Amino acid sequence: MARADGRLNNQLREIELVPNFTKWAEGSVLCKFGNTHVLCNVTLEESLPGWLKHRENPHGWATAEYAMLPRSTQSRTRREQRWPKGRTQEISRLIGRSLRMAIDLQALGERTLTVDCDVLQADGGTRTAAITGGWAAVALALRPLIQAGDLPENVLKQQIAAISVGLIDGEIMLDLPYIEDSQAEADVNIVMTAKGDLIEVQGTAEKEPISTAQFNEMITLASEGIQSLCKIQQNLIESVTTP
Amino acid sequence: MARADGRLNNQLREIELVPNFTKWAEGSVLCKFGNTHVLCNVTLEESLPGWLKHRENPHGWATAEYAMLPRSTQSRTRREQRWPKGRTQEISRLIGRSLRMAIDLQALGERTLTVDCDVLQADGGTRTAAITGGWAAVALALRPLIQAGDLPENVLKQQIAAISVGLIDGEIMLDLPYIEDSQAEADVNIVMTAKGDLIEVQGTAEKEPISTAQFNEMITLASEGIQSLCKIQQNLIESVTTP
Amino acid sequence: MARADGRLNNQLREIELVPNFTKWAEGSVLCKFGNTHVLCNVTLEESLPGWLKHRENPHGWATAEYAMLPRSTQSRTRREQRWPKGRTQEISRLIGRSLRMAIDLQALGERTLTVDCDVLQADGGTRTAAITGGWAAVALALRPLIQAGDLPENVLKQQIAAISVGLIDGEIMLDLPYIEDSQAEADVNIVMTAKGDLIEVQGTAEKEPISTAQFNEMITLASEGIQSLCKIQQNLIESVTTP
Amino acid sequence: MARADGRLNNQLREIELVPNFTKWAEGSVLCKFGNTHVLCNVTLEESLPGWLKHRENPHGWATAEYAMLPRSTQSRTRREQRWPKGRTQEISRLIGRSLRMAIDLQALGERTLTVDCDVLQADGGTRTAAITGGWAAVALALRPLIQAGDLPENVLKQQIAAISVGLIDGEIMLDLPYIEDSQAEADVNIVMTAKGDLIEVQGTAEKEPISTAQFNEMITLASEGIQSLCKIQQNLIESVTTP
Amino acid sequence: MARADGRLNNQLREIELVPNFTKWAEGSVLCKFGNTHVLCNVTLEESLPGWLKHRENPHGWATAEYAMLPRSTQSRTRREQRWPKGRTQEISRLIGRSLRMAIDLQALGERTLTVDCDVLQADGGTRTAAITGGWAAVALALRPLIQAGDLPENVLKQQIAAISVGLIDGEIMLDLPYIEDSQAEADVNIVMTAKGDLIEVQGTAEKEPISTAQFNEMITLASEGIQSLCKIQQNLIESVTTP
Amino acid sequence: MARADGRLNNQLREIELVPNFTKWAEGSVLCKFGNTHVLCNVTLEESLPGWLKHRENPHGWATAEYAMLPRSTQSRTRREQRWPKGRTQEISRLIGRSLRMAIDLQALGERTLTVDCDVLQADGGTRTAAITGGWAAVALALRPLIQAGDLPENVLKQQIAAISVGLIDGEIMLDLPYIEDSQAEADVNIVMTAKGDLIEVQGTAEKEPISTAQFNEMITLASEGIQSLCKIQQNLIESVTTP
Repeated sequence: MARADGRLNNQLREIELVPNFTKWAEGSVLCKFGNTHVLCNVTLEESLPGWLKHRENPHGWATAEYAMLPRSTQSRTRREQRWPKGRTQEISRLIGRSLRMAIDLQALGERTLTVDCDVLQADGGTRTAAITGGWAAVALALRPLIQAGDLPENVLKQQIAAISVGLIDGEIMLDLPYIEDSQAEADVNIVMTAKGDLIEVQGTAEKEPISTAQFNEMITLASEGIQSLCKIQQNLIESVTTP
Repeated sequence: MARADGRLNNQLREIELVPNFTKWAEGSVLCKFGNTHVLCNVTLEESLPGWLKHRENPHGWATAEYAMLPRSTQSRTRREQRWPKGRTQEISRLIGRSLRMAIDLQALGERTLTVDCDVLQADGGTRTAAITGGWAAVALALRPLIQAGDLPENVLKQQIAAISVGLIDGEIMLDLPYIEDSQAEADVNIVMTAKGDLIEVQGTAEKEPISTAQFNEMITLASEGIQSLCKIQQNLIESVTTP
Repeated sequence: MARADGRLNNQLREIELVPNFTKWAEGSVLCKFGNTHVLCNVTLEESLPGWLKHRENPHGWATAEYAMLPRSTQSRTRREQRWPKGRTQEISRLIGRSLRMAIDLQALGERTLTVDCDVLQADGGTRTAAITGGWAAVALALRPLIQAGDLPENVLKQQIAAISVGLIDGEIMLDLPYIEDSQAEADVNIVMTAKGDLIEVQGTAEKEPISTAQFNEMITLASEGIQSLCKIQQNLIESVTTP
Repeated sequence: MARADGRLNNQLREIELVPNFTKWAEGSVLCKFGNTHVLCNVTLEESLPGWLKHRENPHGWATAEYAMLPRSTQSRTRREQRWPKGRTQEISRLIGRSLRMAIDLQALGERTLTVDCDVLQADGGTRTAAITGGWAAVALALRPLIQAGDLPENVLKQQIAAISVGLIDGEIMLDLPYIEDSQAEADVNIVMTAKGDLIEVQGTAEKEPISTAQFNEMITLASEGIQSLCKIQQNLIESVTTP
Repeated sequence: MARADGRLNNQLREIELVPNFTKWAEGSVLCKFGNTHVLCNVTLEESLPGWLKHRENPHGWATAEYAMLPRSTQSRTRREQRWPKGRTQEISRLIGRSLRMAIDLQALGERTLTVDCDVLQADGGTRTAAITGGWAAVALALRPLIQAGDLPENVLKQQIAAISVGLIDGEIMLDLPYIEDSQAEADVNIVMTAKGDLIEVQGTAEKEPISTAQFNEMITLASEGIQSLCKIQQNLIESVTTP
Repeated sequence: MARADGRLNNQLREIELVPNFTKWAEGSVLCKFGNTHVLCNVTLEESLPGWLKHRENPHGWATAEYAMLPRSTQSRTRREQRWPKGRTQEISRLIGRSLRMAIDLQALGERTLTVDCDVLQADGGTRTAAITGGWAAVALALRPLIQAGDLPENVLKQQIAAISVGLIDGEIMLDLPYIEDSQAEADVNIVMTAKGDLIEVQGTAEKEPISTAQFNEMITLASEGIQSLCKIQQNLIESVTTP
């Protein structure tokens, strides 16, 4: 079966990480997975949230907020009035949890990283683009402090990226756009380190239960995609020179 | 390493499903996983939510709401004012999604099942108890309609249950109480069918990334636990006589 | 006229107080008035609410929160999103006010009692069951401190209970279930001490104004019911041994 | 013991009902109980609320909303953002319930009366002034329709008014201003008909439980005050000529 | 073209400023522009809002809250639940900003003025009546402190008032009531000092764009109206004797 | 006095209008006024809002929503939870009102234009960039329907743009960036047609009242800036070819 956009089953969409997309954020990366464009802005503050500040041995903190612009979607989605919807909070929590696994919070000291992931254009896989771009923006935000000696080199203790894998008509495919995502029998979102270890696995059967064998294959395919994403992140970090 | 309550690593806590715990619900089961007690009440209504009603070919619907009583926890948790927190919505969505995979929504016709999972007492694993008890309560709620011929036998197309598995000090353990959960390096919540296929996998590394080998072992242990839970569900259903 | 459940006009429903229904609360009583089941959990904290803490001569505090599980009612009631409804707040305020009259707040010192009254099953008279069970749960929560000498014996300065009385077809009846409550011409909820003095009287004509003579008769009948409830509370307290 | 303002224990404050205080409302009365000034505006609409409209045999409806201007109180009270506080809802519900007892809802037909009671200046007894003034404003709002023959004479089936009675230093006093209210051992708010029958009794012991004998005396004193208020209402109604 | 109420194009409605309309506020003025009646109550507190308090060199503050009673309008307007509407916030911000320009905030010291402008009856021009009456209420609130020597004379550094001007059928008219406002091609609200300088100009074309020549004429007419309003304010201040 | 960025007093910042910045919107323009970047996405729906739909002679509608990304600002601004702040609503209302003056709503028929103006990067003048870019995005959204003959040519009846003018140290300057805006004595935001007529004037004295002569000069300078902006809009429209 051919894929909607002609890719091979194990092929990523065109990936692009645009550094310094906005001017004020300590780290800013526009992360594109094909037509999915997520703006990842990192704010670095020399303070801690209230619940952490008064602990005996406080460590640093990282948190994320995910949101979609109303017309990032094919038909307009209303702004979230009154409170963030379940899906929004769930994705925000996933991004924050994943990025905290990449950071040595003790080494971070009394600092908070807030990673705003705003979807400018959505076409499937927004959460994986947010994590992949978010990690790069965090790396850019921390680098000047590492270079100035204010933070140790290994404050960024893991390199992480994320990708989706789906099961469509019995075939396992990497990095689903919306059209494939909406017809998948099952999909898995995986967050992994550059070394190949798992941070998060969120697998959901959408139409029929899947066998553990299929599930294992999906994880294997994801880990290949994540290796490619990690190389792209690495290239970006090396290409950007700190002023 | 001995477990907090002396169980073997692959042993469930004491499981109890109390049918008809409340009087008005179409299906009511108090589900106990050790000290975790979740009241699962199913409401069956002959109507559909607005967004579904006006479709050309509407099918039935099932949804879930999860909540904790303020003093279900060791120290009191404030009632959720203004809006349900992210964790609450995330668990509600997981329960609803899982139970919908167990039900043939087309066969259900213009009916909505609302599964209220209220935690009376919490000691880890509340979401897995909610899914396991919720499935049993749905089965009890549907049985009179099946027996009356208003619904086909296979409207309940899958039997499902859920369990947690954790990695603690490098050992893999089944069905974590709160004390173990809070110190686990990683934990996975798995929803599976009685036939051994996967519905949901939610794995999270809490301290360090885990290898895919460890992850696979965790899924294997979970599937054993789920087989036991499915037998207990089956015994319950057979023991309850419809009035 | 016979009553719905065959009781005499001056007869209470079957009353049951189940101690230690949940594990974590300092005091826990499941209070049953017939098919009305209210779980009363008392949290005792060694702190005061902000508005009280900074007073010159701060005394202890007691407050209550009343809520209904969605399927405690015959047809499902939606969870209260955004804010508690007027009825919910009104009953919470009544319970809190009544229990504060039972406690010597000066003697309580810098402690707060929070009494959560969650209705598991509703069949009329939930507020009276909440007050009656709430008092018992407070007594259980305070006893260990009294026995340890941390609180004086008379910190619980009054024993109180509550009951409803209704006027139905011109007859005065005690402790109304939902079916009677919904057709009453008038009803009164009364909170009284074991000594027979009034704490709260809330009388409402639902169909026609009532004479003061009828109203006085209703209060007299209520005071008889409250004497019986106080004996049941006393039996419970004596039967439970503090560990 | 002398009262704060020199009144006798059984004496009302200076009562004034100002008709047509605002221009647009179908009925508008500014009700003054001494320094307590409540503006009662009645809106009469030829429609029903949604929950009533689709009933088989719909009757008319009356509802009330009570609120305080921020600086009606001695120190400023913040506007109620997000939701009305418990006290506000409780009083709104009391006013609405009381006025519905005064109106023949069947005779009212497909009409809704909304009675807005806004406290311009508060000095104790705002809810009793709101009910007393609200009844007068309803009477003024309905009169043109009665005179035009669109409503039967007896659509206003009862004349009602309300007053507070307190127990202060063992003495029973009528119509408490704020200074007395704040030091009362107990207080009762009573809504009664001009014929002397009870609509609502809300009695609360604030410091110590009170005996039923004292409580009965309080009701007797209230009923005298209500007779006086009903005469003042009657005078107002007769003095206003419909244009 | 004759105006709805027979006034000349450059004539104000009947203006009345009633001092001390309520009892508790430090300054209270009921401001009437014809049938528009706005109650302006000033609260003076010896404290600062949190965001200002902790500054190095904190100055005083003034803020305003505008609201309409539900039946101030010809048909009833629902109370603003959940949050103030855009129009309400916009007018509150305008009033606050304008009054802050009249006050020397440094001279005010650690004090906050809160100006509540509650519309009792609306007939167009409520924001201009609120500013005009609000200024007078502030002047009354500050005078005792000036007279006691606690504030310098010039703490009220400007006298300000506000008026609307509209373009109707090509004619420019002063101080529009609702009937004219609703059919105006354009309207401008102007806040000005007694000396004739501009504080705020808010001009809006409602039907067709207007020429800058027309716009200039509107401002000229407004400045005449504001001179008259300032004289009325002055008369009020002089007529009220501080106790 | 030199300006912060070396511009002449009557010079605009570098203006850029990027068409089709996002993929799904019917019209999409990224509008840059120097470092201020506002994404204007137009959604065109063949339906009307509820309040308009049921009118006898319904016309089309246009509305706008303005928002800022959290890190569009120099320090992070919290997302607006619970409700949009006053400033946000005020600017949304201004944009919507202005764009409705540009559109012949009768000619638009049963269609709604929703203009989302999301600030990606803020440096002063976001509302003027939103109106200027919003008009261009509306023009792009309507053109295919005009070309297809579904809408008349003159449905876009006016070309409009907006600019700010400020008074700084007594000098009048065009198009203020944040650094100038924050120290201006007064500023005016003006919305004008390409023909030079006024749509909106919002002038505010921030430090001292300004004379009407100064105010007139500010409007004159603004009108020059708007002529330049209209040419840039025109160039954009001509350069984009409809697919």
